[in-house]
Parts: sequence; structure tokens; C-alpha cells
Amino acid sequence: MGTVSAKAKSIRPSSLKFGFIGLGLMGQRLLKNMLNSGHSVTIWNRTPSKCKDFAKAGATKATTPADVVAASDITFSCLADPHAVREIVFGNCGVLAEMRSGKGYVEMTSIDPDTSNDISEAIIARGGRYLEAPVVGSGKAQAEEGNLTVISAGDKSLHDDCSTCLQAISKHAFYLGSQVGDASKMGLVLSMLIGNLIGSLAESMALADRTGLAQKDLLEILSISPLNCHMMLAKGKAMIEGGFATEMPLTHMQKDLRLALQLAEVYEHPLPITASTNEVFKHAKHLGYSEHDVAAVYIRSRF
Amino acid sequence: MGTVSAKAKSIRPSSLKFGFIGLGLMGQRLLKNMLNSGHSVTIWNRTPSKCKDFAKAGATKATTPADVVAASDITFSCLADPHAVREIVFGNCGVLAEMRSGKGYVEMTSIDPDTSNDISEAIIARGGRYLEAPVVGSGKAQAEEGNLTVISAGDKSLHDDCSTCLQAISKHAFYLGSQVGDASKMGLVLSMLIGNLIGSLAESMALADRTGLAQKDLLEILSISPLNCHMMLAKGKAMIEGGFATEMPLTHMQKDLRLALQLAEVYEHPLPITASTNEVFKHAKHLGYSEHDVAAVYIRSRF
Amino acid sequence: MGTVSAKAKSIRPSSLKFGFIGLGLMGQRLLKNMLNSGHSVTIWNRTPSKCKDFAKAGATKATTPADVVAASDITFSCLADPHAVREIVFGNCGVLAEMRSGKGYVEMTSIDPDTSNDISEAIIARGGRYLEAPVVGSGKAQAEEGNLTVISAGDKSLHDDCSTCLQAISKHAFYLGSQVGDASKMGLVLSMLIGNLIGSLAESMALADRTGLAQKDLLEILSISPLNCHMMLAKGKAMIEGGFATEMPLTHMQKDLRLALQLAEVYEHPLPITASTNEVFKHAKHLGYSEHDVAAVYIRSRF
Amino acid sequence: MGTVSAKAKSIRPSSLKFGFIGLGLMGQRLLKNMLNSGHSVTIWNRTPSKCKDFAKAGATKATTPADVVAASDITFSCLADPHAVREIVFGNCGVLAEMRSGKGYVEMTSIDPDTSNDISEAIIARGGRYLEAPVVGSGKAQAEEGNLTVISAGDKSLHDDCSTCLQAISKHAFYLGSQVGDASKMGLVLSMLIGNLIGSLAESMALADRTGLAQKDLLEILSISPLNCHMMLAKGKAMIEGGFATEMPLTHMQKDLRLALQLAEVYEHPLPITASTNEVFKHAKHLGYSEHDVAAVYIRSRF
Repeated sequence: MGTVSAKAKSIRPSSLKFGFIGLGLMGQRLLKNMLNSGHSVTIWNRTPSKCKDFAKAGATKATTPADVVAASDITFSCLADPHAVREIVFGNCGVLAEMRSGKGYVEMTSIDPDTSNDISEAIIARGGRYLEAPVVGSGKAQAEEGNLTVISAGDKSLHDDCSTCLQAISKHAFYLGSQVGDASKMGLVLSMLIGNLIGSLAESMALADRTGLAQKDLLEILSISPLNCHMMLAKGKAMIEGGFATEMPLTHMQKDLRLALQLAEVYEHPLPITASTNEVFKHAKHLGYSEHDVAAVYIRSRF
Repeated sequence: MGTVSAKAKSIRPSSLKFGFIGLGLMGQRLLKNMLNSGHSVTIWNRTPSKCKDFAKAGATKATTPADVVAASDITFSCLADPHAVREIVFGNCGVLAEMRSGKGYVEMTSIDPDTSNDISEAIIARGGRYLEAPVVGSGKAQAEEGNLTVISAGDKSLHDDCSTCLQAISKHAFYLGSQVGDASKMGLVLSMLIGNLIGSLAESMALADRTGLAQKDLLEILSISPLNCHMMLAKGKAMIEGGFATEMPLTHMQKDLRLALQLAEVYEHPLPITASTNEVFKHAKHLGYSEHDVAAVYIRSRF
Repeated sequence: MGTVSAKAKSIRPSSLKFGFIGLGLMGQRLLKNMLNSGHSVTIWNRTPSKCKDFAKAGATKATTPADVVAASDITFSCLADPHAVREIVFGNCGVLAEMRSGKGYVEMTSIDPDTSNDISEAIIARGGRYLEAPVVGSGKAQAEEGNLTVISAGDKSLHDDCSTCLQAISKHAFYLGSQVGDASKMGLVLSMLIGNLIGSLAESMALADRTGLAQKDLLEILSISPLNCHMMLAKGKAMIEGGFATEMPLTHMQKDLRLALQLAEVYEHPLPITASTNEVFKHAKHLGYSEHDVAAVYIRSRF
Repeated sequence: MGTVSAKAKSIRPSSLKFGFIGLGLMGQRLLKNMLNSGHSVTIWNRTPSKCKDFAKAGATKATTPADVVAASDITFSCLADPHAVREIVFGNCGVLAEMRSGKGYVEMTSIDPDTSNDISEAIIARGGRYLEAPVVGSGKAQAEEGNLTVISAGDKSLHDDCSTCLQAISKHAFYLGSQVGDASKMGLVLSMLIGNLIGSLAESMALADRTGLAQKDLLEILSISPLNCHMMLAKGKAMIEGGFATEMPLTHMQKDLRLALQLAEVYEHPLPITASTNEVFKHAKHLGYSEHDVAAVYIRSRF
């Protein structure tokens, strides 16, 4: 689990038993910070091999999601999309099977508010507690350093009970209130802004190149302008260098754009810019860049 | 001319005679910083009344653009759009009428590269020197404090001869090289990014409101995210407060979006996101917000 | 049931017992033509009052969808959207409750292929037969005259068994083959074309008006051009006259655009024009025109 | 000049002397019908070799556009775009050089109303008469058969004096009135509708293919639907067959979309669907299909 950071060392871990389901790119980093700060964690992943290193580092492997819940006071989950979440919760040997009075479930996947509410209702119906807690601005480096922002909504006592985990994972943890769905919505509203920003940057970078300007000049000017922000410069640099090692998978961003458009649809709210950006990201997926970093949308714009 | 800043005091002004044509929102601020730093400036504006305060502060009023050029070694211009620029340069009693060997003309209006090249050729044909020097990230506060970024391209000796003026006006002055058109292009590539960013922010702010989220929560989360940038927070705040006192007129931004799309058209380069953003800004103009601040595009998105 | 057309009189009705669920704008017209051509039909509608006139004309009222299926050899359904269809099929006292070996279910609602396949599987699992049969080009007048086009896919024997009903309803009935989902897809591919066409017409009509041209001149020129088609002229006329009496509800068209975009998403297929059109229709809904005719999208474009 | 049609034979040609400038794809066909119906025509083309066949068929070759005007009572022009038109009219040895009192100039190029008005003023200032007369629905076959629609606006006496030519060229000639610019606008309003329609058809055809449907089934269903129109079926067939032999060059359509968007811009009128379509056509140009038929936009959509 690499070196343990000063931050991780400074946390006094809760003595509750925790669970963690889903060891994708993001999940692995969240789990690592939970373990490094001294939490006791039972884990499960669809592809069991990914559990190996974490088991060595002290995590307990379980055979099914239900087993994780059975062994834990509070179970975290971080999966690919709403479909995967529903399967893990409602499926055979799923979370619901072992949900009992007092146990908690924390959903960190970026999902739509309807899915979040459906899960919440099912868990509460079994006496459990629910918190939705999507991650914002999910760069790999930030995740590794526990510098993420987590937005949450739902059961306040659950939020408090897992606060040392959230502390280990994130630099900032925003609790929006008890209204399940609000954190999901806030996550989508922010994520669509990131998607639009990166899509727009790609158009500017591509036009610069096409018209004979130096892209590094553009980034240098950006860096001293009122638009200067960490994400813009990092993604701009990735567009110049190519390669697109995955910080945040392009397909996850496109999923968030889709969910934001669906959310807007429910409210009959037009989002013409986001709709265009979504088609551009879909095109990038079609060109084979789903699993590359979100900055690979540049390939589509340069096209 | 208000208090003279420490920066203005620290500049050792060139002893050349300068001219300034166009006292709009931006022009006034550029001129003020040139005067405050001790430069000698002859001025002209279509509406003469705007010259009064500057005349009191030491500027000399001229009767026509040609008279400004006649009285100056180097003439700056800052106007509304390419059409206005062509009129001032090529029109009756225009810049060309008094352009002579050795004199310089610095175009600070955000224009398309074709217009810039046409002007450049005409001025060089009369023995003059030409520099295009559009301003980037044109917030009112920044302009007032001489904190702008200026990108320039064209005659190097002219650039050097007016360097104390550029110093007075801007925090950063980028000279891209002798290729006229490059600074115009770079200005448009940046401006379209700003337009896309503000249009995207407006969609997120409007969707937050529509779905029952607090917009101030969104801004607070933004401020600690990797998207945090000065412009985003300033414009987001303006969207919450309404009013939209003009920092940068919405119609100027839409003009830049249009020019960026025209530039891309010459290169057969598709810009689907920017095209959508442009239609949104056009809609905001149609709703009567041309002269409001660019952040008023939010009105259209909230609609 | 009004006068019985020559066409209805010429049909030799099947002696099977039929069911019909869903008496919305379209459903009523389909049912009327089935009754007028001599078919025996048991009916159900969520709002029972709509059944009254049809009961007088010979239809038998049932208390639940399940009762319709119990009383019928073949049950047709024509509802608002995939959500409504799922409720009627899978819900309490739904279609599945009485589905038995040999019975048939014909889904005429415009739905997504996933929903269609889910229904198909459930019905076949109970020994039933399934046919998806969405309607294309659903003008009120055409529906009344039995001049619709019906595209179908699924069980061939079911298609043949209900052929006299399809004959009564439609001018053309296309059987695409046994692959459930193909007719749903084809319906969406056509419907999105209609939506794009009407949205585009609205932009041209609005621009004509805005620039001082006579809209009737535009329609007259259209009528003699290679673009001349019935739908274009009918919708153009509606845009001039206003009122927008509902031939096809705008919200149904927007639903189809949404489903087409979802379908494309599954295949990672970009649809930039359709995505723009969808936002325009969403805007028209937001402005309060959901239940008006699809041509009311013009209100948004004229805005 | 091929066989002379019954229509051409039935026209009693005016005894005035006519001129024709611009022998592109469309120009050649217009000229052929003017010659075949017995008109006397002096011609000019930038590439002189294209004049050869027409000279054999009785046309007189001139050395410059000015020479055409000098030799003719009424001069027609059919060029690529507004830029080409301005050059031919205002350039060296251009139309204006020999424009005299009573002579007429008929502009058949699809141009923007501003260009049309500039030309009109210049011609009237020299005592000449001006008519703008763009062609609508410009299929090759239709042009060859003299089955086009021509919309005109401007000098009524000029319209009457060249009526036998318009008759030879077109099936329908619409005179909108004396207001120069109205026919240009109407032409653009129609052309953008055609562009949107073909772009939309391309999306539907591509989605059909992507989702495993037979494109010929789609066209067959279209052909019996209320969307059935000549252009849709012809372009749909071209998309299936590929090849894209040029009926109407894709680049001309994109030019019209651009001019329509510019027109709308002047009126601050948003055209979100047309803006998306324009980007799609620009993309198709970028992919190398400028000189192919407009239906080649399908290549971009299938991408």
C-alpha cells in the first residue's frame, strides 16, 4: 500500500467494522486510504484477483457483497454506473440480503437521484441507514493523496459514524442534508461542468493546432489568465503529450453527461451545450477511447 | 483618473507621442493606465463627450482618427468589432490618411485574422508599422488595475517602442512573433474557451436551481475543486446576484464566438460545442441582454 | 363510431376474440377501425369513462388489463411510453397475470427495443406469443381513415392471426421478421427523422418571419419543390395558423427523440443533429406545450 | 447540347441579347436550356475550356465579364459564392465596367442579402437594372430538364424582359416583389431546410445500419409515409449506393448553411438545429467530401 502519508497517520480510525465493494480505479484508491489510516475493512470485487494486494495489506476478503454487509457495520461501494449499483444491491447475494437494523450503506458511485432513492428506500425498509456520497474532481493523484472532495446526503448519524473514513479519503467532505438525491444531483451538476470544460478545452486546443498556433503558448497564456485552474492545465498538458493514461475514464464522464441530461429531462430543462458535449464524448467512445483518460476527447476534436 | 497605483508610478514612460482611438469600456481603462504612468496621449472617440475627463487628465483631443495619427508616433485603437476597425482605418479621415513612414499602429480590438492582415498590408504599404495586440480575460477590475494579459504579433520594433504602454496596461504581455494574424487567432481561441466556460457554468447553475439545490453550495464546492478559477467564481456569483453590471459586454463575447467559428470555417474545422454555445449567446442577445455582462447568458439557461 | 368507411366494410374480420388496452388519442382511432370492420373486442382504459362510447359501439368493458387478456385470444396495447407499458404488463392485475399458452400480445406503443425484449421474454416464458407493432406517421386524420403504416416484428403466426385487425388499422403493414426489437428500432429511426424535420421546418418558418418574408410564400415554394411532402405542408400550415390542435402530442415526439438517443447511446453512435432537436423539443415542453401538437415546437423557434 | 426537349421547343425565345457568366455544374445546365430554347447568348467562364461545347452549340465566347455585359442586353451569372460574385461584378474587367443605362443583370448564385444589395446599388448607380434569382432544389436531373424553381426579387421590368429565359430554365418562377434581398433570404431559408433534412436523413440511415436494420426497408417505409418526398428518397438511395456523384456539391450546401446562420445572426435569431447541421457538414468537408454530392454527409454520420 506504499508509504503511509502524514495525513493518514494523523487520523484516529473508528473502531467500527467497515466493508468496501468495488475495486476499480477509484475504489482502489479510496480503500487504500481507509486501510492506511487504520480502518478494519472487509472487501469484495467482481474480479477477485484485484483483492490480493489489499488482503496482504490487512483487508479481509469476502465471497459475495452480502458477506461484506454481514461482516461490516458500514459498507462502502464504488462501482461503474447505476446499472452495476442496482445489481450489487438488489441482485443475488447482494447488499439487501444481509442488510439489518442499524447497519449502514454508503454509495460513492456517481449515480442518478432515482437510483439513489430506490436503494435508499430498500435499505431503510430493512432497518438500515443510507448515505449517498459521490466523489468530485476525481483525478488519480488527488485520490491517491486523499485530496478528493466528497459530497454527501442522507442519514446524518451514518455520516458521523463513517466520518474518519471520509476524512481518510477526502480533503473536503460536504454534507448537504438528509434529502437523499441531493448529493447525486450535485455530483452530476459538477461533473457535467467538468465535461463541458474539457470538451471546450479540446476544441480550443485543436483549433490552435489547426491554425498554426503553438499549443504550449495557449496553455502558458491560460495559466496566467483568470481561467487558470488545475484541471484545465493538467488536461491541456495531457492533450499535448497524448497517451492519455487514465486518471478518470472517458466512459465514466460520458456516463455522467448522460445522467445529467436525464436529470434535466425529468425537469424539462434544456441543456443545449451539454447535449453537444455529450455527442462529442459519445463520438470519442465510438473511436475507441472509452477506457482512456477523459482528456482523450481531444482526439475527436482534432479529427 | 483616480489614484495612481504603485505600478503606474514605477513605470518610466517612453517619450514618444502616443495616440488612442476608441474610448469604450475597455478603451477607457487602457487609456487611463497609459496616462497615469506618464505617457503623452492624443485621443479620439466617436462620441466626443467621453474624451472630457481624459482631456482634464492631460490627454489631447483630436478631431478625427487621422488627426490622432498625424500627432502621434504610435497610435493604439480599441473598438467594438472588425467592422468598426475597418471604418476607422479605411474610412474618411481614417488612420491610413495620415500613416507615414516609421509611424506605428497597434490594434487592440479582438478581430479576425483576415481583417488584421488587411489592415497590416495597408499600413505597411504606406511605410507604417503594425502590431495586433488583443486583450485576454478582460474583466473590468483587472483592466482598471493594469492586470490584463495582452497577446501581440507583428512588427517587433513597434512592440519594443510601445513596451512601456503595454507594461502600464497589462500584467503579462506575450509577443508571439512577427506573423500578423497569430495574436488575433490566439485571442479568439482563448475567448471561445471563456465563452464555452461561462455558457457551461450557466447550464450547471440553472440546473442546480431547477432541481432544488443551493447555487451557493455549488460555488463553494467549485471553489475547493480542481476547477476552481477566478473567472468561474466571479461569474457564478454574478449569476446568483443578478443585475449583471457589465464587466465584459455579452455582445462582445458573442462576436468573438462568431469570429472563432468563422476562423474554424476557413480551416474546415468542426466546433460542435462552440456552435451550440454561440446559439445560446445569440438567444441571450435576442432576449435583450447584449449590453449586460457576459454572465447574463444565465438568463437564457434559466429560462 | 361515425360512418363506416368502404374500407372497413370490405374487410372480412377474423372470428378470434381481441382485446385492446389504452384509449388515448391514437388508441381510440385504432380501436374504432377494429370495431367498424366487425372485430369482437374487449377493452380497458385507466380512465374508464373513455370506454363508454366504444361499449355502446359493441366493445366489452373489462375491469383490469388481466381481464382483457383472459377474455381475448390476442390483446393489443397502445400506451404513452415504455414506463406505462411495463406497468400494464408487469403490474398488479397486469397482462402477464392471465397470459397463457397460445394467447397473443401485440404492443403498438412506440417503445425502446430493451423494453420490447423484456416484455417478449416474459410473455414467451408463460407460453404466449409476442409481436411489437409500432405505428409510423401518426396523424389524426390518417389514423381515423385507417391510413397508418404499422411496422412489426416478432411471432409470425401471431402477425398472421391478427392480420385483419392490422388491415383495418393501416394502409401498409410491414412485417420486418421474427427479431423482436427491430420494429421498435425502425419506429424510432423514423420518428427521430420526423422530429428533426419538424424542428428544422420550425427554424425555417421562424427565420422567414423574422426576416420579413411571407411564410405562405415559403410553403407555396416548398409545395412545388423536391421537398414537398404531406407532413411538411400540414405542419407548416399549423405553424402559420397557430392553435396547434393535437394530431400527435409534442411530448410523445420528445419521448421518441429521447428513446432514439438512448438507442444510439447503446451503440456509441453520435447523433449531433438529433441531440440539438431534442433540446429544442424539451424547451418547448418547458414552455408548456407538451400536450399541444408537435408543430408547437415552432413557438420555441420563434421565441 | 443533347436532344432538345419538347418544352424547349415550345418556348418562343426573346430576341434580346443575353449573356451568361459562370459555367459550373449548375450554370452549364441553365445555359444549355437557354440555348436549346433558341436564345442568343454570349458567355464567359474563368476556365475557358468549359465554353467550347457551348460555343459549338451557338454561344459566343467573350474574353472578360465586362465583354459579356457590353455585348448583352441582359447578363445572367451563376457562380460559387458571394466572394466570387463580388469579384466578377466589382473586379477588373468586371460587370460594372460595362454596365449602362437600361442593361440588366440577373444574379442566380445563392448569396446573402447584403451582397445582393451591394451589387444592386452599384448596378442601379450606373443606370442598370438588377434582379436576384436564386435556384431552389438544385438537382442535376431537374436542372437538365428545366424543372427547377427560381425565386426572384428586384426590377420587375427586368424580370419580364428575361421571362422566356426563366421559362426555359425552370418549371416554376416565383417573383417575390421589388425588394432586393427577399429572394436571397428565401433561397437561404429553403436551402437550410434542405441541409437539415439531408443531415437528419443521414443520421437516421446511419443509425439504422448501426443497429442492424436494412436501410432499404427504411426507405421503403419512408416512401409510403407522410414524409415521402422526392429529395429524401433520392438522397437516401445515394447513401445506400455510395459514390455520391455530384448533383449538388456538398460545399455549396455548407456555404448556404453558413449564409443562413449569418443571416440569422444579423437578426439575433437562434438556430440551434441548423448550427449543429452546419458543423456536421463542415466535418464532412474536412473529411474530403467538399466536391461530392451533398448526400456524402452520410459518410460523416456513419463514422
